[in-house]
Amino acid sequence: MPELRKDPVIGRWVIISTERAKRPAATERPKPPPRPGPCPFCEGNEAMTPPEIAAYRPEGSQRDGPGWTLRVVPNKFPALMIEGSLERRGEGVYDLINGIGAHEVIIETPAHETNVGALKEKQFEELLWAYRDRILDLREDKRFRYVLIFKNQGAEAGATMEHTHSQLIALPIVPRTVSDELVGAQEYYKYKERCIYCDIVRQEVEDRLRIVSENESFVVICPFAPRFPFETWILPKKHSSYFEHASKIEYIDLARALRETVVRLNRTLSDPPFNYLVHSMPFQEMENGHYHWHMEVMPKLTQVAGFEWGTGFYINPMPPEMAAQLLREVVL
Amino acid sequence: MPELRKDPVIGRWVIISTERAKRPAATERPKPPPRPGPCPFCEGNEAMTPPEIAAYRPEGSQRDGPGWTLRVVPNKFPALMIEGSLERRGEGVYDLINGIGAHEVIIETPAHETNVGALKEKQFEELLWAYRDRILDLREDKRFRYVLIFKNQGAEAGATMEHTHSQLIALPIVPRTVSDELVGAQEYYKYKERCIYCDIVRQEVEDRLRIVSENESFVVICPFAPRFPFETWILPKKHSSYFEHASKIEYIDLARALRETVVRLNRTLSDPPFNYLVHSMPFQEMENGHYHWHMEVMPKLTQVAGFEWGTGFYINPMPPEMAAQLLREVVL
Repeated sequence: MPELRKDPVIGRWVIISTERAKRPAATERPKPPPRPGPCPFCEGNEAMTPPEIAAYRPEGSQRDGPGWTLRVVPNKFPALMIEGSLERRGEGVYDLINGIGAHEVIIETPAHETNVGALKEKQFEELLWAYRDRILDLREDKRFRYVLIFKNQGAEAGATMEHTHSQLIALPIVPRTVSDELVGAQEYYKYKERCIYCDIVRQEVEDRLRIVSENESFVVICPFAPRFPFETWILPKKHSSYFEHASKIEYIDLARALRETVVRLNRTLSDPPFNYLVHSMPFQEMENGHYHWHMEVMPKLTQVAGFEWGTGFYINPMPPEMAAQLLREVVL
Repeated sequence: MPELRKDPVIGRWVIISTERAKRPAATERPKPPPRPGPCPFCEGNEAMTPPEIAAYRPEGSQRDGPGWTLRVVPNKFPALMIEGSLERRGEGVYDLINGIGAHEVIIETPAHETNVGALKEKQFEELLWAYRDRILDLREDKRFRYVLIFKNQGAEAGATMEHTHSQLIALPIVPRTVSDELVGAQEYYKYKERCIYCDIVRQEVEDRLRIVSENESFVVICPFAPRFPFETWILPKKHSSYFEHASKIEYIDLARALRETVVRLNRTLSDPPFNYLVHSMPFQEMENGHYHWHMEVMPKLTQVAGFEWGTGFYINPMPPEMAAQLLREVVL
């Protein structure tokens, strides 16, 4: 059983997950996975994954059979286990919880595409609906406080399967990064009675210095203080705390914005490894005036080294104004 | 001029440093540096570095000439600039400071060693004295609040020069990671009137589950909630807030503990890439009962991916109890 362990000084949680050690090359140096033989994520190989949790497939087609356009399955090497009840305990100065959670894989296409940028806008739209469906389902489970939706594109960004896929992890505690954002947004709101993200959107749309693209519902920017070269955020123009509360029109506009952003990064940086993720309000809280959901896209071009680990600072050689200009200039 | 920029939501600082972009391969994908031609860090090539800031060399030997055993030079591609006064300003919702700081390289040996594990105990001792000397010098500069000492071993851990070296960066603000530790340690102290790190040392020495090694002055452990496989901490047994206040005996013992730790990691993991760093109290504060300086050593074996960036959580497939056992069993 995996464990959630808390650092006693700074309160950072860690998942100690020996299941994950069974993956091929789990603790070896990163290198492109060789992975010979058939791909478990391809249509026709459904029996190679655990039974599906959900799928978009025509009526009448068989569960765990071919015919689907998108498929959600449990991660075969889950970081957390879905069965059991939460148990918190101490060991002297230390605190831990047994590793309850969900770890799912969202297979984005039945075809063996290795880059999400190859997907059509319609497929991105379907992918966003799948994210929403899984969140709505998992938030019914009262053990969970948060679901992180994320994607690792490329081996250097942590992907161990090359067939394009997203992942989600449902967690019994609110992750630190999200609660840091919440606290910061709340403080700003207390002071100004405005949402900090709304103020960012307003300033960026006016300045245009760091704008990558814009449509009816979303603005894509390189943020003012990016950790990484070409880090890019996608923000809804209309204030809302929850990703899963977006409208149909908004998902259509987000599919376009997200796909375009991936294509812009791919063209500018020759298909770089990258991660993206969704940040939304933790469960069991209400829509509010201060927290504003958004997506973050982070190409992996520089190494995180001793300085970053030691300080929590990042050194970024690429000003976001220059990155935004390069991304803006891509002809789609 | 580089800039320190603050994320307006969570307050994370970032150094936007276009100087660094001039390094060969600054924003290309990580790969082992080819670096043909003579090594600027080797004895005899002193003219290839900026003039030395300090060196350990026999009396009578020439500054920036051969004969030294350890040499400190400015980083040729500094993340921050040493000249100028601190200027804080705002740009709408954003805050920034001009990028004042020091960025130095500590060349650990005149010989072209590519792994710090090849250095003798005496050389480690000298290295620790060099760290101390540089901190004592830089803390006189009232613009600085903190000096981070760190090492990147191997290209995958961020080293761009293979000749073994450490670095330091002096900063005008206290880094987030250090202030998180300070706040956590202060809270524990308020509640218990004891140092959390002292309690950790006590519990680990008693349990012995996560002990790697021990000498008169230091204990080496795999921490209870490690972010990375084989993450290892070196803690002084005697409480002290500042690295630079250690005694001669303590530096001798630390040199032994640090060298042994590197050798244990090298033997267990076949010369892995790793980072190490020193965490000590920020300047302008006093020795106190709650903060306890220490070193952290982090092999780079797993990829930091979307989940980690999105949550601030880490997934670690290697329980520290197992890592400690493997490291303990190394025959030195």
